[in-house]
Amino acid sequence: MSDDAIATLVHQFSRLPGIGEKTATRLAYFVLTAAPELASDLAKALLDARTGVTFCGGCQDIALSDPCPRCTDPRRADDCIVVVERPQDLRSIEASGAWRGRYHVLHGALSPLDGIGPERLRIRPLLAHLESGAIREVVIATNATAEGDATALYLARLLEPLVDKISRIATGVALGSELEYVDPGSMTRALQNRRSFASSKSDPTE
Amino acid sequence: MSDDAIATLVHQFSRLPGIGEKTATRLAYFVLTAAPELASDLAKALLDARTGVTFCGGCQDIALSDPCPRCTDPRRADDCIVVVERPQDLRSIEASGAWRGRYHVLHGALSPLDGIGPERLRIRPLLAHLESGAIREVVIATNATAEGDATALYLARLLEPLVDKISRIATGVALGSELEYVDPGSMTRALQNRRSFASSKSDPTE
Repeated sequence: MSDDAIATLVHQFSRLPGIGEKTATRLAYFVLTAAPELASDLAKALLDARTGVTFCGGCQDIALSDPCPRCTDPRRADDCIVVVERPQDLRSIEASGAWRGRYHVLHGALSPLDGIGPERLRIRPLLAHLESGAIREVVIATNATAEGDATALYLARLLEPLVDKISRIATGVALGSELEYVDPGSMTRALQNRRSFASSKSDPTE
Repeated sequence: MSDDAIATLVHQFSRLPGIGEKTATRLAYFVLTAAPELASDLAKALLDARTGVTFCGGCQDIALSDPCPRCTDPRRADDCIVVVERPQDLRSIEASGAWRGRYHVLHGALSPLDGIGPERLRIRPLLAHLESGAIREVVIATNATAEGDATALYLARLLEPLVDKISRIATGVALGSELEYVDPGSMTRALQNRRSFASSKSDPTE
């Protein structure tokens, strides 16, 4: 019956993160009563994205080809790597336009409470990359959270023997923020990480 | 490039109601990094539900066949119609098990502020149904909102010459609620709509 097809659609929507049964029901009825293209376009986008997408053997990013275009781009500095937790973090950095080096995606962060240890992260390909000896600097760009901090600390210790310089992206006051409203944690970091006015040397950021 | 397929998926998710670009991005990356079946199951459910589903020419509900099984079910009283705003409202009434008559789905409610007048609702098939003369009672079960009230009032006036009895589902205190916490509007309705202990005559509700 029609109700079975609807119930299946509700169930499939409710498997997505942050979508409970009520939201899934609302989405399903919206799809059923909207223009038919809406459902078919979404279905096609799902299949295209999922079947076309694989993981790059280099940076471990989701990509259409292995190696991905960023790993083979000759205009990118190949002696510097930014390490991020997730593919969307990589895209956020790309959107800033401030990084012209390589990337490595861990696909997670250490979280002992959730039972996620180093073996659950994609660290081995990063080690292999570093052991090739071509890397001058690793910039750790994990999230500014407890899990991101723990992961950064773990990686810094692990990678220390393999690379000259290990850094972490700065934490502090967000651009455009009014100091009156900055949270105490960010303010503390902004003060601890204060920079002298002079500094700025050549670097793959621009 | 892979980013195009991802951007398309994000865009398609963001066409759903209540899903902004941030949520759409989160959903897209979840789908891309989860088990491949998740994407293909959702795509299949979308296509199955959308291609299989049509509108019943009788009650206007979304259905797999026209007329739908509820319109042709001989065990249902065919002289009483419940009028609802949306297909999901019909299912909510069915879930209660309290109605064994027919239905009519308006696919919306009057909302002058949003430019939704009577011509946007599926009222004509309801009039045709009533003009056949077989209907004894119309129960208006629009939402207990300003739009639902306006729609109920409009329909009551429009249908008055066509049918013996027009009623509206009761508003009042929800079952299981403690009076201490009932909102003033519901309390007002509960008092206005108070019932004497005796009443109860034969009726398609059970």
